[in-house]
Amino acid sequence: MQHGPVRTRSDAQQLDAADPLAGFRERFTGDGPDGTWDDGPGRRIYLDGNSLGRLPRATPAAVARVVEQEWGRGLVGSWSDWVGQAGRAGDALAAGVLGARPGEVLVSDSTSVNLFKLLEAGVDARPGRDVVVCSADEFPTDRYVVAGVARRRGMTVREVPVDVDQGLVLDDLAAVLDDRVAVVVLSLVAYRSGALADLVAVTALAREHGALVLWDLSHAAGSVEVDLSAADLAVGCTYKHLNGGPGAPAFLYVRRELQAELRQPIQGWFGASDQFAMGPDYEPVDGVERFAVGTPPVLATTAVEVGVAITTEAGMAAIAAKGRALTDLLVELADDRLPQLRLASPRDAAHRGAHVSLEHPQAWQLTQALVDHGVVPDFRTPDRVRFGPAPLYTRFVDVWDAVDRLAEILAADDHLRYPATRSRVT
Amino acid sequence: MQHGPVRTRSDAQQLDAADPLAGFRERFTGDGPDGTWDDGPGRRIYLDGNSLGRLPRATPAAVARVVEQEWGRGLVGSWSDWVGQAGRAGDALAAGVLGARPGEVLVSDSTSVNLFKLLEAGVDARPGRDVVVCSADEFPTDRYVVAGVARRRGMTVREVPVDVDQGLVLDDLAAVLDDRVAVVVLSLVAYRSGALADLVAVTALAREHGALVLWDLSHAAGSVEVDLSAADLAVGCTYKHLNGGPGAPAFLYVRRELQAELRQPIQGWFGASDQFAMGPDYEPVDGVERFAVGTPPVLATTAVEVGVAITTEAGMAAIAAKGRALTDLLVELADDRLPQLRLASPRDAAHRGAHVSLEHPQAWQLTQALVDHGVVPDFRTPDRVRFGPAPLYTRFVDVWDAVDRLAEILAADDHLRYPATRSRVT
Repeated sequence: MQHGPVRTRSDAQQLDAADPLAGFRERFTGDGPDGTWDDGPGRRIYLDGNSLGRLPRATPAAVARVVEQEWGRGLVGSWSDWVGQAGRAGDALAAGVLGARPGEVLVSDSTSVNLFKLLEAGVDARPGRDVVVCSADEFPTDRYVVAGVARRRGMTVREVPVDVDQGLVLDDLAAVLDDRVAVVVLSLVAYRSGALADLVAVTALAREHGALVLWDLSHAAGSVEVDLSAADLAVGCTYKHLNGGPGAPAFLYVRRELQAELRQPIQGWFGASDQFAMGPDYEPVDGVERFAVGTPPVLATTAVEVGVAITTEAGMAAIAAKGRALTDLLVELADDRLPQLRLASPRDAAHRGAHVSLEHPQAWQLTQALVDHGVVPDFRTPDRVRFGPAPLYTRFVDVWDAVDRLAEILAADDHLRYPATRSRVT
Repeated sequence: MQHGPVRTRSDAQQLDAADPLAGFRERFTGDGPDGTWDDGPGRRIYLDGNSLGRLPRATPAAVARVVEQEWGRGLVGSWSDWVGQAGRAGDALAAGVLGARPGEVLVSDSTSVNLFKLLEAGVDARPGRDVVVCSADEFPTDRYVVAGVARRRGMTVREVPVDVDQGLVLDDLAAVLDDRVAVVVLSLVAYRSGALADLVAVTALAREHGALVLWDLSHAAGSVEVDLSAADLAVGCTYKHLNGGPGAPAFLYVRRELQAELRQPIQGWFGASDQFAMGPDYEPVDGVERFAVGTPPVLATTAVEVGVAITTEAGMAAIAAKGRALTDLLVELADDRLPQLRLASPRDAAHRGAHVSLEHPQAWQLTQALVDHGVVPDFRTPDRVRFGPAPLYTRFVDVWDAVDRLAEILAADDHLRYPATRSRVT
């Protein structure tokens, strides 16, 4: 989805007219009456779908059906269906989004809990190794989980330096790998810059040293084409580009060939063999379900299934192409019209996910001003405004107008009216 | 709520007429058209609310509001509310159901994950001790989690024998306690027999030996009066007597005075101090939120809040009294009319929760026949039929009719038509 120079709003509208995914916007709830899309000049432009994705129009009815029919009427009898839901949702994610095989992905728990489970399992699978490698700019919860596991096991966390804007350089990873490294934890798409790591090359490099890579796909799933056939372990969230709803259950991936040798630390009954026999001893079930723990969250997983189905229908190739085109447009317009901001993401769309960050010393003030002008980005400490134009419902004209509003704010110094420091979110 | 002998169906109906909680039945969805209650002779009699509680009538609208308004319209802006939801739901549980103080209960994760977190934290708080005590008939996931933690830490699991029907004898616990014991894991209401342990006495006994008791309240929360002011640690589920829905998030309790010294093993960002500062190092936040891990499940927690509110409104004293009266009636009618079955629960209602089990060599066949006759109990291996008449929506006449149908099945040997062994649930 390459495009020529966009010099006017009308140029952006022409890109929308040619967008093969344009129709998917109507599959989501807008901000107008009854969830229609308000396309007027004062409309909200939501560029934070990589923090919390929008609500698919099909979700309320799907959730209501599960609540009212399956729970309200079916009661315990519905468990015959529900017991397979986490695996079915995982298989759908595997096929439509992650490039994994059936039986390799499970929807369960939160990303942080899944990261803990697979990190512990991965470290156990590399006995005698006492180092976990983690990026110096990894997402906080990942760093925290890694630090906690390392502390408890007496392991060392070795940080791989990353360029905060450009992401991981393979040579930097090579420099920290040796035969002490058990697991490398790394986001495929960096949460701050959007930098896209090379899944195949990183995994291959780690394997040369006998280490496992545990990928965090939170910002990648649903925004870039992922081919987990080259990967060993992964986790990720479903409430960003997969539009699964606030706090939606996360997913985990374990390569089929590794499943039998991996055991997770939280031995819950949903990971046990012949669970309802309730035998005296825990024996992990065969397959990816051995990484399940407690009773699965049926209502919330239903919302995940809807989001995954829409993504699958649109197709990851088309979604990723539009993500590159939208962020290309944003970069191009920022170059032209926002000289006060510095691009803090890879310039080459092939090396980033579907979000870009712009650096400015008053980033927090700009974020507040943008929200008051109807543009919703995200602020990343200390000095970046992050824009995530979701390919399924963001138009090129939305990017045009967002940049327009930001240029107006800067021209009028409107952002200086806002507090310079962020108070604690409560 | 004592009652005289119930010799006729009409006697049971008179108990319903005098039941102060009778009106709460209308707060739940029944099996008739549009969720009304079908009170006809062929109606379904659901006695498995201690496996999955019924759907409160208020839940679909509450969930729809969060989905459509808070998520669909509010988008990321709603996090200002959502970020406190787990603690608010916990405080509501603490006040209305658990007898705990504000800031001691958190709704999060699954029961199994919470058990893991608090068990690890509890063991860490008792350095030098290498034994975890667990009941020999503890619920499987609890035994599995305990075994997993013990295996990974090189600890020993010491089983305390329990009478499968009558529950824990305090002297048996005393016999296994010594200064090697770090934590005792025990259900307050036993999942099989319904036997109610003595929270105060058990906790006091364990404290004498310097050990912590980690209570599993899954079958107790919403069925018996709980006073956690005497307890140190607890977890439990919300999809049974609290009617939170299939796979609803669970809860955890940590006594206020213990919170500062306990650290949990899964260092996720929602347990971190000043979370959105996303600082480089994990520092647990003050208070019970330090036992949170990942992004909390907003939709599912909303359903929990509805269930907890109904329970609070009805009042645990009244609910527990009706639970005793319903199970007393069941025991009394079983004595009279089901001589083939043996009571496998404490006979004294003061020593049990709101369910009772009856033993029969063909328990699995009886369970299948009951379901076909519209009575939904639960089967517990190898030879028990478990009846959980939920006080909020089960009537005395339902218990009468359930026993009636079971007596008819037995008289006609109707159950012998069913498979004698249970095939694996898939």
